Amino acid sequence: MKKLINRPEDVVREALQGMAGAHADLLQVHFDPHFIRRADAPVPGKAALVSGGGSGHEPLHGGFVGPGMLDAAVPGAVFTSPTPDQILAATQAVAGAAGVLHIVKNYTGDVLNFEMAADLARTEGITVEAVIMDDDVAVQDSLYTAGRRGTGATVVAEKIAGAAAEQGRPLAAVAELCRRVNARGRSMGMALTSCTVPQAGKPTFELPGNEMEIGVGIHGEPGRSRVPLGTAAEITAMLAGPVLDDLPFKAGDPVLAFVNGLGGTPLLELYIVYRELARLCAGRGLTIVRSLVGTYMTSLEMAGCSITLVKMDEEMISLWDAPVRTPALRWGL
Amino acid sequence: MKKLINRPEDVVREALQGMAGAHADLLQVHFDPHFIRRADAPVPGKAALVSGGGSGHEPLHGGFVGPGMLDAAVPGAVFTSPTPDQILAATQAVAGAAGVLHIVKNYTGDVLNFEMAADLARTEGITVEAVIMDDDVAVQDSLYTAGRRGTGATVVAEKIAGAAAEQGRPLAAVAELCRRVNARGRSMGMALTSCTVPQAGKPTFELPGNEMEIGVGIHGEPGRSRVPLGTAAEITAMLAGPVLDDLPFKAGDPVLAFVNGLGGTPLLELYIVYRELARLCAGRGLTIVRSLVGTYMTSLEMAGCSITLVKMDEEMISLWDAPVRTPALRWGL
Repeated sequence: MKKLINRPEDVVREALQGMAGAHADLLQVHFDPHFIRRADAPVPGKAALVSGGGSGHEPLHGGFVGPGMLDAAVPGAVFTSPTPDQILAATQAVAGAAGVLHIVKNYTGDVLNFEMAADLARTEGITVEAVIMDDDVAVQDSLYTAGRRGTGATVVAEKIAGAAAEQGRPLAAVAELCRRVNARGRSMGMALTSCTVPQAGKPTFELPGNEMEIGVGIHGEPGRSRVPLGTAAEITAMLAGPVLDDLPFKAGDPVLAFVNGLGGTPLLELYIVYRELARLCAGRGLTIVRSLVGTYMTSLEMAGCSITLVKMDEEMISLWDAPVRTPALRWGL
Repeated sequence: MKKLINRPEDVVREALQGMAGAHADLLQVHFDPHFIRRADAPVPGKAALVSGGGSGHEPLHGGFVGPGMLDAAVPGAVFTSPTPDQILAATQAVAGAAGVLHIVKNYTGDVLNFEMAADLARTEGITVEAVIMDDDVAVQDSLYTAGRRGTGATVVAEKIAGAAAEQGRPLAAVAELCRRVNARGRSMGMALTSCTVPQAGKPTFELPGNEMEIGVGIHGEPGRSRVPLGTAAEITAMLAGPVLDDLPFKAGDPVLAFVNGLGGTPLLELYIVYRELARLCAGRGLTIVRSLVGTYMTSLEMAGCSITLVKMDEEMISLWDAPVRTPALRWGL
């Protein structure tokens, strides 16, 4: 196992310590239980956004904490749901009178633990709404999931809902926008290589040198098919086809196109995938009105990518463009 | 070779096409010869910054084109210097009366070709100054270099000099700031794995599963030593020691600390390295006044990292903080 780490059991804590040091102007990290919060939270009158999930997907979610996006993020152990006490502590830390939105990717442990934390928070008088993200079209049920998995649309939802909250919109309106992104967003990913969980010490799955996994999950869960290696054009078509057909996206739709690296794939390759995706979208008559190309939701050092398309409207575009200042996504501030 | 590409010979062109599509609001890409320019260049009255080098180091340099940083970037073939005609065309495209600064990493081909382009530009009446970056303390001479290699401090120099140019400072002052960053910046990198140049199709070097290369170059050039794998603490000490001793950095120095991923290393690990680097800096009495942690100067999909320290002053800090809007580095705009 070749990793820049010390003891495998210290990976999450030490990465959080590094993050706290590198972004001390913006974030505070609370340890035991672990959560990352906006330094200035709770922001009076603002609905607070809390997300979280297993670690190993950085910059998601801690890299999206800051003005215009999340108020807190709750990192579990690597590929392991955060505990209810972590989520509760984060919720308490950022909650104000305007209430809290939990943004939860659809993995069984995440959903259960966020539900439990929400129930506990409500007994303390905190208003909590939750939105479950399930945008991954690859498989219906999966290793850790009943129903579809939550993936790339979560980044878009956190940006758009975060902007709405920053503008002072009420909790219900912020939650509706988050649900709207999920309803109009579809994703699919693929792996060229496996990843290695530090405490496991060996690859999560074996993938021969001439094969790839289409529809892979962000924890290395099996996808739709294991097939021979293809070109970027072939791979992008294998991902974009199911995504485009699912909503379905139609000619004339304005879309946000998001090409995401899974951790071990360089930007050079992601731009090639974006080129293919743009051609496929143009071929269906879609208009790409906004784009995002980079490494935002990872599976440790996995080589591969995911694509996400979200059907946008004017309100969503305006909220996407709104100022944001987080470690991983920043503009206008 | 597992890569998200089509034909190896089309990698650079297709990635540039993807980049052009993804950042059409900000950049224009010119093909044959290839260069990336600010959509609004030449900016009247502004000294123009042009950098470049082989492709395979993305987001460097094309990802740093935009207001507050570069006016143009010139991408060569993968790990190959851009040609004089490319550099000349980029220089002509962005040159105004205030002249042009060439920011050149110290690799023999880059230096020669930028010099030749500068000479040609001068015959056309364009004022050109050049700054050679040579911040890598690992080795004195190298596979492609007479003297030290140019690495991470280049990113810092492009940001600080770019901000100075955006404020309308004259070419000589902008060049002086770039030289100041180089004079006060030191870097060193290490590799856990090799990278594979697409047209070569096999790893640039072989590195056994239990070894790492300390002092590696960004094209996979040999470093100082090949040693058994170590912890993040040990590795960071092996990089930071030579960096700290070289300037030398002294107690009380305000520094910018930059932890850079080489392409295949996830952010989770880079934050662990940052934690170690911050501890080492504190141990020497340095004050980290600004930091940057992420993947900014890569060697394709190489796993590993580099660290860069730059001794800052108030003027440099203010220019670092100035607004910037590029694909890869953005704040305030």
